[in-house]
Amino acid sequence: MSGTLRVLPLGGLGEIGKNMTVVEYDGRIVVVDTGLMFPTPDQLGIDLVLPDFNYLRERAEDIEAIVLTHGHEDHVGALPFVLREIRDHGLPPIYGGPLTIAMVRSKLDEHRLRDVPLEAIDPGEVFSAGPFDIEGVRMSHSIPDSLAYALSCELGTILITGDYKFDQTPVDQQPADMARLAELGREGLLLLCGDSTNVDRPGIALSESSVGPHLEEVFARCRGRIVVTCFASNIHRVQQVVDAAGVLGRKVALIGRSMRKNVNIGRNLGHIDIPEGMLVGVREIEDFPDHKMVIISTGSQGEPLSALRRMAHGDHPNVDLREGDTVIFSATPIPGNERDVGQTINRIYQLGADVITARDAPVHASGHGYAEEIKMMINLTQPRYVMPFHGDYRRLRLHGELAEAVGVDRESIFVGDNGLPLEIDASGARFGRRERSGVTFVDGVDVGDPEDIALRDRRMLSADGIFIVVATVSGDDGRSVAAPEIIFRGVPFIDGSPELLDEIREAVDESLAHSAEEEIREISLLQDHLHDDIARFVYERLRRRPMVLPVVVEV
Amino acid sequence: MSGTLRVLPLGGLGEIGKNMTVVEYDGRIVVVDTGLMFPTPDQLGIDLVLPDFNYLRERAEDIEAIVLTHGHEDHVGALPFVLREIRDHGLPPIYGGPLTIAMVRSKLDEHRLRDVPLEAIDPGEVFSAGPFDIEGVRMSHSIPDSLAYALSCELGTILITGDYKFDQTPVDQQPADMARLAELGREGLLLLCGDSTNVDRPGIALSESSVGPHLEEVFARCRGRIVVTCFASNIHRVQQVVDAAGVLGRKVALIGRSMRKNVNIGRNLGHIDIPEGMLVGVREIEDFPDHKMVIISTGSQGEPLSALRRMAHGDHPNVDLREGDTVIFSATPIPGNERDVGQTINRIYQLGADVITARDAPVHASGHGYAEEIKMMINLTQPRYVMPFHGDYRRLRLHGELAEAVGVDRESIFVGDNGLPLEIDASGARFGRRERSGVTFVDGVDVGDPEDIALRDRRMLSADGIFIVVATVSGDDGRSVAAPEIIFRGVPFIDGSPELLDEIREAVDESLAHSAEEEIREISLLQDHLHDDIARFVYERLRRRPMVLPVVVEV
Repeated sequence: MSGTLRVLPLGGLGEIGKNMTVVEYDGRIVVVDTGLMFPTPDQLGIDLVLPDFNYLRERAEDIEAIVLTHGHEDHVGALPFVLREIRDHGLPPIYGGPLTIAMVRSKLDEHRLRDVPLEAIDPGEVFSAGPFDIEGVRMSHSIPDSLAYALSCELGTILITGDYKFDQTPVDQQPADMARLAELGREGLLLLCGDSTNVDRPGIALSESSVGPHLEEVFARCRGRIVVTCFASNIHRVQQVVDAAGVLGRKVALIGRSMRKNVNIGRNLGHIDIPEGMLVGVREIEDFPDHKMVIISTGSQGEPLSALRRMAHGDHPNVDLREGDTVIFSATPIPGNERDVGQTINRIYQLGADVITARDAPVHASGHGYAEEIKMMINLTQPRYVMPFHGDYRRLRLHGELAEAVGVDRESIFVGDNGLPLEIDASGARFGRRERSGVTFVDGVDVGDPEDIALRDRRMLSADGIFIVVATVSGDDGRSVAAPEIIFRGVPFIDGSPELLDEIREAVDESLAHSAEEEIREISLLQDHLHDDIARFVYERLRRRPMVLPVVVEV
Repeated sequence: MSGTLRVLPLGGLGEIGKNMTVVEYDGRIVVVDTGLMFPTPDQLGIDLVLPDFNYLRERAEDIEAIVLTHGHEDHVGALPFVLREIRDHGLPPIYGGPLTIAMVRSKLDEHRLRDVPLEAIDPGEVFSAGPFDIEGVRMSHSIPDSLAYALSCELGTILITGDYKFDQTPVDQQPADMARLAELGREGLLLLCGDSTNVDRPGIALSESSVGPHLEEVFARCRGRIVVTCFASNIHRVQQVVDAAGVLGRKVALIGRSMRKNVNIGRNLGHIDIPEGMLVGVREIEDFPDHKMVIISTGSQGEPLSALRRMAHGDHPNVDLREGDTVIFSATPIPGNERDVGQTINRIYQLGADVITARDAPVHASGHGYAEEIKMMINLTQPRYVMPFHGDYRRLRLHGELAEAVGVDRESIFVGDNGLPLEIDASGARFGRRERSGVTFVDGVDVGDPEDIALRDRRMLSADGIFIVVATVSGDDGRSVAAPEIIFRGVPFIDGSPELLDEIREAVDESLAHSAEEEIREISLLQDHLHDDIARFVYERLRRRPMVLPVVVEV
């Protein structure tokens, strides 16, 4: 009983996304979730944002297992990148519910990571990983097979909830296992790490199964084609769309690569049931009358390359949106995506089609429990300590206040941060010394540090463009021997001013002549002077600071 | 009575922002508002977005007047740029309420546009401009001195509302002139062009004066410093913050250039009253106890360079936000700004301070009327035709539906678009032939066409960076005579691979040798080949498509 249990969040605290947590006892590690997030517009050219998982790289030998709560990108998306970095030490087993594992397998295949030890587990099954006994507890969320994990070691048990809600009428009729949660509470839970996403909403979340009847009502009012957009992984939502279409005698077409892929996986696992003959191919859509068609599409977040965004821009090969069509957003924008979603909706209206969002009708239910559900979780599990997970700083703090409101001591509530480990031993709990944390960027196929100068350069290039000045100088006296070449890109409004380019050429010659007078002959020094002189000249003329790159060729 | 009245929106339809309308009769023009909008993140390096006002440039001689409804940037911000383009023909008089004119004067001064004929008018005053008699009608909005304009010509009267709400208890106790609006209706209004911004909200907007008591309540619960952020032009809001501070014996400091400027203008015009000794300088903030201080700051939209954003990043020279401080957002995010506002709020929480937004307490009232107010406007003015203004396509359509709901014939409702003129003559109304419309970008001090290649280049540069290849070839045989120079910027993760650069140099030599064999000697052709060969090589190696710029120097 003398060991120290460490819970080190590497992502998901102080932010929404890239959830990843290291649980450590006796020097042995279990990783809970390996999520990613998507770049913000100022992260120019970056494809994905991962947690900085240097800690895992350095401790690769100590990792006993990776456990995944559910198949969403913000909980599993970084897995291929993590595995690639730690595989030299042999891969640890990776556990998750059947759908989670199926989705992860497909993802690892795309990354050509094969022979990874993936283990699909059922709720209630206990497996061991080093000093831990681990058990998945069934939870409800907006994707099937979601699990919370109870990790037990000598010192006690901690529960990491993953994303959850207490849906009493889930579509698969398998509500969260409240009895097991209560039992964990009675047995004495040491630490609860719970989802904070909807802590700012009072009451409880709508049940997923309440969405179906509302979809049916909305469908019944539509005379033309119906396009429903939702998350491709929201298998139960897709099922409800299919059911509503069936009631009204409409066919269903699936648009978007991830929609087809996930529905396929969901069908294989028995999570989704589409009657024979109901599904039509994308190219057959126009063969059916408008009032006989429901299209289920990706793009609920207004993603630039998604099927719906392309339809909205009149740029989809198979679907031309038009007057009479109704597009139903069966999803709400993730914070940060409001602008993209708004632009997509505006374009759809411009084409003459109608749009129905969750503001117009209850066609969406959140997968995250509201304040009363978060309180219920604390009351059920009676934790000694509480550490809010999955939320920006405001939500983490609200979660802490709510824990206090249901009777947890203020001293037992740890509102933390990425990189800040909570350390628990026989004498109590406290935050330990900060570990390295932050972000890792994925750019194309490469993974790297954001401090890389490339991003700074890209910002500069994107703001004002670039001037390249190529000067050819004599090896004898350093004077210009040919007219300098001036090339520019991304510098606006100067195409029509050849005079300006002439003047820059003159400025180059002057700068070189000046350097020659001062007997400066070293190329790098010549280039420095040229840079400063030209940058100054350009700023004076254009009031703009493009990047200036001088190249001096000596002949 | 045989003339045609044309109403041509150049901005503000199908979008929120850059409102500008051309009203034309008998070949003579009155321009109503000259607004701008702010760039989206994909408009790299662009500072401002204006309407394409080529139409005004071409018709400069026919402009009789410019009338401005109120002083917000989305209604007046493009004025300096418009004036600069039309001034060769002599400037037309510019009319607006006293605050509008004072704000515009200050703006034109910054642009060194002097001797502009600015005319401050009072509501009810009638002035003529070519074939039009024009009258400003007092409206309430989130800035004082807002006017609707009634423009009368032989054919009849049209009313352009500008932004408005029917606030029955405005802070200056001067509600919108409903009596005059009703009179216009009784006299027979030909066309109503009304604000659609809040058409999707049921009921009526909160009164501005309801905000003050709520601010006072919130202030009373704060123990530390209070920072209130709101629009600098929302003079009545600033007054209410000052009043609430006064009740609680707190001093007030103003932070942010536009906040100080607008409060100054507001004080000069008697719109705002700050008691002697209450205002303290920014550098004196730390001289007063925390519970004696209210800071009024810009930055309610999370603008990157604003005072509040700098505070949130711990980067403001005079204010360090800390535990105990409360930041009150007395404004809501303009659509598209949610992400910036969200990031700012998260940073403030990270610093330990508290945040209160309009979701937590009624500390904000919109300046735009809700659905019932829009209906009221239609019922009061009884227009023959309705043309919704100021809104994205969804809001314009909803406004049209709402007009139908209050009894306007469907055929008399014109849901339009930028560039689409409504033409009215004795025989009726219809849309005319589309005119050129769109956007003009302001980049630094220059104004130009978005089709300018610069933006495409910036996108490419920002996504993958740039490779510059400088090859020196012999004038005799076209073969490389010196090691090629390879320069790159914004291409990540290759700093550590000198081998790659060596390989690129080899590829350059190979490409040149190949061209030499084929006796290709023309520099531009050599460069084309070099471009294609290097771009292919780089893509194969990096799976990335940076811009490749080859420069061939012949010696």
